[in-house]
Amino acid sequence: MNQDIYITGTGQTPFGEHWDLSLKDLMEQAISKAIESSELTALDIDFIIVSNMLGERTNDQAHLGAMASAMLPHRPPAIRTEAACASGSVAIHTALSLLESGRAETVLVIGVEKMTDVPTEEISAALMGAADAEKDIPSGLTFPGIFGLIANRYMYEYSLTRDKLNIVSARHHENAVYNPNAQFQVKIPAEKVSQSATVADPLCLLDCSPISDGAAAVILSTKHESPIRIVASQMSTDTLSITDRPSLTSFPATKDAVERALEEAQISREDISHLEIHDCFSIAAIINLEDLGYAIPGQGIRLYEADNSMPSINKSGGLKACGHPVGATGVKQISELTAQLKSSNERYALAHNFGGAGATCCIHILENSNA
Amino acid sequence: MNQDIYITGTGQTPFGEHWDLSLKDLMEQAISKAIESSELTALDIDFIIVSNMLGERTNDQAHLGAMASAMLPHRPPAIRTEAACASGSVAIHTALSLLESGRAETVLVIGVEKMTDVPTEEISAALMGAADAEKDIPSGLTFPGIFGLIANRYMYEYSLTRDKLNIVSARHHENAVYNPNAQFQVKIPAEKVSQSATVADPLCLLDCSPISDGAAAVILSTKHESPIRIVASQMSTDTLSITDRPSLTSFPATKDAVERALEEAQISREDISHLEIHDCFSIAAIINLEDLGYAIPGQGIRLYEADNSMPSINKSGGLKACGHPVGATGVKQISELTAQLKSSNERYALAHNFGGAGATCCIHILENSNA
Repeated sequence: MNQDIYITGTGQTPFGEHWDLSLKDLMEQAISKAIESSELTALDIDFIIVSNMLGERTNDQAHLGAMASAMLPHRPPAIRTEAACASGSVAIHTALSLLESGRAETVLVIGVEKMTDVPTEEISAALMGAADAEKDIPSGLTFPGIFGLIANRYMYEYSLTRDKLNIVSARHHENAVYNPNAQFQVKIPAEKVSQSATVADPLCLLDCSPISDGAAAVILSTKHESPIRIVASQMSTDTLSITDRPSLTSFPATKDAVERALEEAQISREDISHLEIHDCFSIAAIINLEDLGYAIPGQGIRLYEADNSMPSINKSGGLKACGHPVGATGVKQISELTAQLKSSNERYALAHNFGGAGATCCIHILENSNA
Repeated sequence: MNQDIYITGTGQTPFGEHWDLSLKDLMEQAISKAIESSELTALDIDFIIVSNMLGERTNDQAHLGAMASAMLPHRPPAIRTEAACASGSVAIHTALSLLESGRAETVLVIGVEKMTDVPTEEISAALMGAADAEKDIPSGLTFPGIFGLIANRYMYEYSLTRDKLNIVSARHHENAVYNPNAQFQVKIPAEKVSQSATVADPLCLLDCSPISDGAAAVILSTKHESPIRIVASQMSTDTLSITDRPSLTSFPATKDAVERALEEAQISREDISHLEIHDCFSIAAIINLEDLGYAIPGQGIRLYEADNSMPSINKSGGLKACGHPVGATGVKQISELTAQLKSSNERYALAHNFGGAGATCCIHILENSNA
């Protein structure tokens, strides 16, 4: 960061199935909450960035920048960014460059997705837009299918058992009990995970993040101070299709982005107290912890086997239990970690958000100056 | 601009119906041409911004940032921006803030749309994502319908005749004859415009920009110099739905953005020699010229009645005759004006790009330091 960028407001709708709310309603609620949580008024916002993946297809609504802008009395300039499931973090990254450029002093980032208005098969088809339409769709892959292949290969290479994999979702559900905005505020016994319906062998229903509606907003400012700052923002990319990768058991974009983020923040990964990682499927959580450098390949599961791992992992419940409205997820991670740093009074937190099967990875590090 | 930003490369595919090319093919062609036109190699590119509106819906392909990134050997970070038909200019705006922030020294902006793979009724429905899905779709509006209402009101308020309106498309076609990348390199007699099939009364087929495939790319840099710089970039927004507007015969976002752009460039509109304006429909061209300040309300048509208006208007053929692959249009305007400034050796050019019925407007001013 070439200057201090403060998180001056955060807001989130509950994630879940909101039959009675539209895309617009969800945006309005999260924006109002973010402004209320700050010491600002709507008029302090210079620019808006909307994060959304599917609105044009599942809600007949593109042009969400202009829609969000009209929710504020002075209609500031607004754009939408998209990088599949990494849309939220990429919106934050874009907001930071706007702030660093001096073109804006206060930027509202609003992530939103309304996924329950269309049938599940249409959501599955739409989400395949995150993969390579020319290579992966004709081969019949879905995202559960892609991560099923990854899980199979990982279990073969590292002898991970199905029973052990169960712990991941169980832990995320255990965490979500304490998150009033989580889609599933309910514990599940670990053995229930592999007893749930098979979606893409070896992955079962309870290994998969759900279809969710929801919105999350963050207000970033160079002008209005707060104890929590963003001190690193780094992106990295990989091939869209897993068929172009040398390995299925690691996502190199995560490895690259985290090294650069730690360098930008000038800290080591041991300084970080809270992680929110992209657990779109249980197997992804394990691989992500390895790629982030918290475990050697094959050993990621150990962080879930420990009773109190350090750093904490997905206290929000993660994508699995908090829910995964795709455009909102990356923004929710930032809003969630802001709250975690404040309540724990720890110093550093890291958000890991990726799109597709790790084709885009964007990592942010937050610092609490009160800690 | 807080620093000099040079246009160091431009590339464009022909616009038209490319049955034999995919979205990916179009992107690759424009990117290759832009790199070839510059003195750079692919490795000089630090970041990519993709402009696209409809890919997720009409081509099953989102996540175009990662797709573009994989076309370069070092896979730089990449995102997609969207603001309906203003996606291209908004991508340029976003690139400029990245450059001004110092996070990147050289950014590739690639705009692309592949519209001919789906039936016309699906394209019409998809384009309505640029309007307000909750208000405008249930009332049965399409974009030709929206601009038909606007044309009717304009003709009533200012006594513009149907015959005079014919001149706009005829002039744009006349210009396109000299543009090898134009979709329609053919003159049409003015009277043929109102003799073509009625699409949304009073607008006929030849008043409407076509359905197009195409891509355009621009390389922007703070490091690699060139005679052409971008000296202003300003955005403004309005309501998504025309039902929320006090008037149908002006787009206030254009007025606001142009005043701020002229102030940023510290020039007057009389300094500008070349305009590319957003003529999605013939009536829009007339209103845009008025909103840009080149004619008083009701008199925009006079600039088309003159044989050689100054500044020149849509020498590319504009959206009508050059074609309108929506995500590419705003980028094409910049690439086109770069060529126009070089060949005419004039000093200033202005690109006017809007989304929906003027809900997002983004204006850029280019300066030729050799002039």
